[in-house]
Amino acid sequence: MNMHTPLLLTPGPLTTADSTRAAMGRDWGSREPDFIALTQALRQLLLATAGAPPGYVAVPLQGSGTYAIEATLATLLKAQECLLVMSNGAYARRIVDIARRMGREVRVIEFDECEELDACSLDAALAADPRISHVAVVHGETSSGRINRIEPIAAVVAAHGRALLVDAMSTFGAIPVELAGSPIAALVASCNKCLEGVPGIAFAIVRSADLVRSEGHSSSLSLDLHAQWRSFEENGQWRFTPPVQVVAACVEALRLHAAEGGVGARHARYTARTKRLLEAMAGFGIEALLPKATRGPCIVAFRVPADLSARLERVIVHLREEGIAIYPGKLTAAETFRIGCMGVFDEQAWQRFFDCFRAGLSLVGWTPAATSSVPA
Amino acid sequence: MNMHTPLLLTPGPLTTADSTRAAMGRDWGSREPDFIALTQALRQLLLATAGAPPGYVAVPLQGSGTYAIEATLATLLKAQECLLVMSNGAYARRIVDIARRMGREVRVIEFDECEELDACSLDAALAADPRISHVAVVHGETSSGRINRIEPIAAVVAAHGRALLVDAMSTFGAIPVELAGSPIAALVASCNKCLEGVPGIAFAIVRSADLVRSEGHSSSLSLDLHAQWRSFEENGQWRFTPPVQVVAACVEALRLHAAEGGVGARHARYTARTKRLLEAMAGFGIEALLPKATRGPCIVAFRVPADLSARLERVIVHLREEGIAIYPGKLTAAETFRIGCMGVFDEQAWQRFFDCFRAGLSLVGWTPAATSSVPA
Repeated sequence: MNMHTPLLLTPGPLTTADSTRAAMGRDWGSREPDFIALTQALRQLLLATAGAPPGYVAVPLQGSGTYAIEATLATLLKAQECLLVMSNGAYARRIVDIARRMGREVRVIEFDECEELDACSLDAALAADPRISHVAVVHGETSSGRINRIEPIAAVVAAHGRALLVDAMSTFGAIPVELAGSPIAALVASCNKCLEGVPGIAFAIVRSADLVRSEGHSSSLSLDLHAQWRSFEENGQWRFTPPVQVVAACVEALRLHAAEGGVGARHARYTARTKRLLEAMAGFGIEALLPKATRGPCIVAFRVPADLSARLERVIVHLREEGIAIYPGKLTAAETFRIGCMGVFDEQAWQRFFDCFRAGLSLVGWTPAATSSVPA
Repeated sequence: MNMHTPLLLTPGPLTTADSTRAAMGRDWGSREPDFIALTQALRQLLLATAGAPPGYVAVPLQGSGTYAIEATLATLLKAQECLLVMSNGAYARRIVDIARRMGREVRVIEFDECEELDACSLDAALAADPRISHVAVVHGETSSGRINRIEPIAAVVAAHGRALLVDAMSTFGAIPVELAGSPIAALVASCNKCLEGVPGIAFAIVRSADLVRSEGHSSSLSLDLHAQWRSFEENGQWRFTPPVQVVAACVEALRLHAAEGGVGARHARYTARTKRLLEAMAGFGIEALLPKATRGPCIVAFRVPADLSARLERVIVHLREEGIAIYPGKLTAAETFRIGCMGVFDEQAWQRFFDCFRAGLSLVGWTPAATSSVPA
């Protein structure tokens, strides 16, 4: 690992592979044949990673994941169509914000941040309101680390003949979403989370049939997924200057993902890390926010013990001094902090984090009851 | 120069410095103090490079230059306000497209691609229509290489008490635009042209007073310059995940720009290159599209001689085989090709381009009248 590279245990950007960063070491003419081939490789690797059946295309877009969410909503929904958002966290609320600001009609079924999305209430809402054309759901709520099960939602959406939009930002590449036979019109994600690329591009895996009929929907020239797709199909080029080095890095990251064994292998690696993390934290007397069944392996939210609350910031600063970054929580209901299990680092780095965390707790004089079970 | 890095004589992305690309060699937590400091350095270096007086702020944005143009229009214009675009090229027409698609009312004064923008017609248009709140102009039309003089336009805009928006995409850092005492509400540019950074972020230098009163104007969450600025001011952070490596590279490129001697030195370097280029091309019997007075030093459009037209593509392919990229033209009226004079390369590389270009002409059997004056 590069000496200057910190250990980023965050929701992203993450610690990347040396070869991923090394791929940024050259310049590219963005309209030259070699870069067109690189873009084609990016799109094919994204489709393969998604396990997309025929009828889906990959449309990468310059910007952050939020840009790709916005472009997808602006492109796939007509002005008069109505979106229903199943919400149990900050990223679902962001989808609501985006759609409302662009003037789309939005309904929300709101759940508690720790609560499961209820497919029955979705069924009732869709039955009651035929104007709802699209349903949006967040696969992994980065705010809580919760994984929302897509299958029951998809089944209800399919039964009503509506279209499903999935924000798979923090799960794509580590937790599969079945596209074949699904009502999923778009699966939106970023290259800099489970794919372990660098930030600067995001993408949507979109059903071609939905794209074909979406010309002129977006009132944004920049965030128009249909026009972006048409450009790729017509001449293989990005409409506007792409971050060429970022594209090269993300292609390398996707190749590493495939070489590791794809989604299954990535899932197994993160799951093993999460298991070790939960053991270590339990040893410190700190418990995960969510029960095992709803918790994902990508990022874990932990409850801040009441008597640690005022001292947690100092622990985070201690970790920072050791070159390790973790994030405070992003929940409205409970005080939490979050540890990301994504990114490129080895068992030794993981153990070093546990040691530094223990040292940080010790530094602030916080002694949990169960210190004796801290793993060696 | 990196062996794998081509010589990009294009409108961008360009050939960058080794140290600029090397700055992408590490990871950053985007909400960590060191990255917040890097972002602050970026914003300060942009302001310094712009020579901005107090009352202006730099607002960087994820994405390409077009994104920053769109965000500026969406943020600074209220829904009911009217934009007048002074147009003599493809990038002015793009501003018209963007503003119309977002539902803003747009007037256009259209000039020929080789013609000067006429300040008198602007004066008449503003006198006739008090509803026009903003005027937009492109400083360097990358399509033709023409430099539109900002001063006469700015004087008329100021006299009528309106606001001016300048697209300085292909000039920022090499040709100054006077902000002090001007009616310029925003100067929009990208880091990967004359600043010689890598693509992935763009920015606007905006008059604070205009930003302050623009809350809630943009119907896009992603492309909202006011919200982006507020976030930088409040906690120093980007609202959404920034391309951290791109930011690091652009800060290094800005430091190199300052170390070289700033805008004046960059202008002198490009001007010297352009002079050599025009001499070499004249030696081949190929003439620049524009007269000296309106031609910029950043990119030069050349007329394709009639009997070379069918063979030019083969010359471009020959250059590509030699690791050199040039672009065909982007004009509707005349057949041209364009040579960019921006980017990091030395006199030897420049001479090698001339040699390869001559070899390409020879390869396709094109023998101009004045071959004898080709520089050695």
